[in-house]
Amino acid sequence: MRDVAVLGVGQTKFGELWDRSFREIGIEAGLQALVDAKLSSQDLGGLFLGNMASGALIDQEHIAPLILDATGLGHRHLPAVRVEGGGASGALALHQGYLAVASGLYDYVVVGGAEKLTDVPDETASRITSSAADHEWEVVFGATLPALWALVARRHMHDFGTTREELARVAVHAHEMGSKNPNAHYRNKLTLAQVMDAGPVAEPLGMLDCAPLSDGAAAVVLGPMELARKHTDTPVRIVASQVACDTMALHHRREITRLESTVVAARRAFDQARRIPSDVQVAEIHDAYTISALVSLEDLGFVDKGRAGPEFATGRFGPGGKTVVNTSGGLKAQGRPFGAVGVAQVVELVRQLRGEAKERQVSGANIGLAQDVGGTGATTVVHILERAN
Amino acid sequence: MRDVAVLGVGQTKFGELWDRSFREIGIEAGLQALVDAKLSSQDLGGLFLGNMASGALIDQEHIAPLILDATGLGHRHLPAVRVEGGGASGALALHQGYLAVASGLYDYVVVGGAEKLTDVPDETASRITSSAADHEWEVVFGATLPALWALVARRHMHDFGTTREELARVAVHAHEMGSKNPNAHYRNKLTLAQVMDAGPVAEPLGMLDCAPLSDGAAAVVLGPMELARKHTDTPVRIVASQVACDTMALHHRREITRLESTVVAARRAFDQARRIPSDVQVAEIHDAYTISALVSLEDLGFVDKGRAGPEFATGRFGPGGKTVVNTSGGLKAQGRPFGAVGVAQVVELVRQLRGEAKERQVSGANIGLAQDVGGTGATTVVHILERAN
Repeated sequence: MRDVAVLGVGQTKFGELWDRSFREIGIEAGLQALVDAKLSSQDLGGLFLGNMASGALIDQEHIAPLILDATGLGHRHLPAVRVEGGGASGALALHQGYLAVASGLYDYVVVGGAEKLTDVPDETASRITSSAADHEWEVVFGATLPALWALVARRHMHDFGTTREELARVAVHAHEMGSKNPNAHYRNKLTLAQVMDAGPVAEPLGMLDCAPLSDGAAAVVLGPMELARKHTDTPVRIVASQVACDTMALHHRREITRLESTVVAARRAFDQARRIPSDVQVAEIHDAYTISALVSLEDLGFVDKGRAGPEFATGRFGPGGKTVVNTSGGLKAQGRPFGAVGVAQVVELVRQLRGEAKERQVSGANIGLAQDVGGTGATTVVHILERAN
Repeated sequence: MRDVAVLGVGQTKFGELWDRSFREIGIEAGLQALVDAKLSSQDLGGLFLGNMASGALIDQEHIAPLILDATGLGHRHLPAVRVEGGGASGALALHQGYLAVASGLYDYVVVGGAEKLTDVPDETASRITSSAADHEWEVVFGATLPALWALVARRHMHDFGTTREELARVAVHAHEMGSKNPNAHYRNKLTLAQVMDAGPVAEPLGMLDCAPLSDGAAAVVLGPMELARKHTDTPVRIVASQVACDTMALHHRREITRLESTVVAARRAFDQARRIPSDVQVAEIHDAYTISALVSLEDLGFVDKGRAGPEFATGRFGPGGKTVVNTSGGLKAQGRPFGAVGVAQVVELVRQLRGEAKERQVSGANIGLAQDVGGTGATTVVHILERAN
C-alpha cells in the first residue's frame, strides 16, 4: 500500500450562501486546492465527492460529474464518484480517495465535500437532517436528530453527572475559535449564560447547543507521498484512514452514551498510525450537538468515559491545552454543510500542521486527528495526519 | 496493487416487490453472496453499497450502515459506504470495493446494489429518474431522461440511417433473454410489431423501448486473488475496473450520438486488462433505452460507429453470436433498480464465466465485460472479468 499525502487544501466560506449555486461553491473549493497543490488539472486523476442529500435538497443526484463538468474538466473524462454516509459523507469520500491513491490505480485525486442546505424551507432541511437517522424505527415516530441526541445527553447526565453548564461550555469554546476563522458561519462569541438561556430545541439541548445548517464546500488534493515534495514543502501524510459503523437506531445499542463506531474507528486508526491519543495536538471532532462533542472526546480516548464534561471545563481542550479541539470553530461555529464537514476538518488540520492557521495556530502541532460522524453515530470516520519532516 | 477476485454472487428477483422493504431485499442479496463465497460474516471486512436515490424515494439517507445493521452485523462495527452516480451507482460501488481490496487495507468485502422504485407514485419516480440528468440546464426546462435519449435516437437515425426497426430489435432480444431468467422483472417475449406499435414515450422511443422502474438488489463478495481458491473452485478475476465521466448536459458534448465516457472507460479498461473487444464472449451493456444499447455497442468498440443497428439485426450479439449481450435480459427485461443494475450485471457475468447460467449459458465464455451508465452518459463504469484457470 502506498503512502498518501495531502498536497493542497481549499475551502469556501460556510454560511447562508444564497447568491451562490451548488456548482459554484464546489468548484471554488476544488480550484483553490489544485492551486495550493501547484497541480495542473492535466495531472488530475479523479474526483471523490462527499455529499449527503443533493437529491432531496436540489433534485439533483449524480453530482460528482456535475462538479467535474463545472470546473471545465468535463471533456477530460476523469472518474468522478459521489460518496454518502449522512453527516460523515465528506470523510467517507476522503477514505475513498485515500484508497484510490494507496492502491496505485490513481496518482493525484481531488476529494471534495459540498452541501447546499439553506435554499429550502427549514422544515424540509429538518426532515433531510433526520434522514441520517433510522427512518422506519425512529423518524416516523417523530424523533428528529436533535431529539435523539437529547436522549443521549439526558442519559449522560444521569449516568455520569454531566451538567447543563458543562454542555454549554462546548458551544462557548466553538464560538471563541470561530471568531478567529474568516470562513466560519458564526464569528460572534457567546457567553455561558447566552447558551444556557437560549430557547429549548429538545431539552436539555437549546438553540445554541445545536450546530446550524450551512452551505459550503471544502476540498483537498491527495497524491502519493513519494511525489509530494514536487508540490509542497510541507506535505502532510495521512497515517490512518478508518471507518466503523454501528446500528442505525439508538435503541439497538448496548449503551446510548457510547459511540461504538467512534471507539472502534479510533482504535483501528491509532493502530494503523502506531500512535496513542496523547500524541495528538490538534483534533477536529463532531460537535453538531454539544453532547456529541463530549461523548466523542471520551470515545476517541482523550478522556475516561464520563469525564469529558469536567475535563473540558478545565480548559484542557482549549488554546494552550494538551489537545486543542475544533480550532476551526467546529460544526457549531464554522458551520455544518453536511458533506463538506469531514473535508473541512482535514483542511483545518493541514493548515495547523503546516503552521498556516494564523490567529488560531496551535504551536508545535505535528499530529492531528479528525472524527466525522453520521446520524447518531451509525458511521464514524477517523483520519490521523502527520506533518512529514 | 493486489489482484482482486469475485468469490460469491447473490441477487433478488427484480420487479414490483411491494411486499418487501428496502432492507429486506438488501440483506437477501448480501447473504446469498456470502453463502456462495463460503465466507463467514466474521471474515467480512466491509460493505460498499450502490444506491441512487433512497433519500428522495424513502426519506432515508445513510443506508450503508442500515443494510449492515439489518444483516445483524451492526454490532461488528464494519465499515460501510454508500456510493452514488445515478444509474451507474452499482458499478461505482464495485469500483470502490475493488480499490479497497486492491489497496491491501481490506481483504473481504461485500459490494451490494439496491433500489426500491415502485413504492412511490410514477410521477415521483419519473422526477427522480431525471435527477441523474442536469437539473439546471435540462430538467427544469421539461426534459426527462427518456426525452434526452430520444434526442440521441433522432440524431443517430439522421447521421447513420439507423431505423425504428433496428431500435426495436434491442427490446425483442432483451425479452427473449429475460424469458430464461427467473429473476427477471419481465419474462414475456415480445415481437417486433409489439415494440414498434407500443404507445410513444418520447418519439421515436415507445413504451417498449424503455426499461421499467424496478425494485431489486444484487451483491458480490470480493477478495484477494491469492485467497480465492479457499472459497471457490471457479474464481473470477476482475482484470479491469475503470470509470470515466462526461459533461452532465447533452448540449455540452461534441456529438450527442457518442458516449465519450464509454469510449474512454472502455479504452482504459481494455488497456488495463490487455484485451481487445473481440476477446469478449459475454457483455452486459446499458439498454435502459433501445438507443442506449446501440450507441454503447459502438462506443465500447464492438462495432464501428453508426453500424450497431444493422449489425445487431444480423444476430451477431444474440445467442450463438461472437459476443452475446445482456444474457440476463438487460435493464429492459431483467429490470432497472438503478443502484442494483451495475452489480447485477456482474452477477450475471460471473454465472456465465462459471458455466452456471443454465438455459442462458454461452458456451466457452471466459471473458466478460460490464458497462454501467448514469444519466445520459455523464458516468460510465466498465469492468472486465476473466475466469481464472
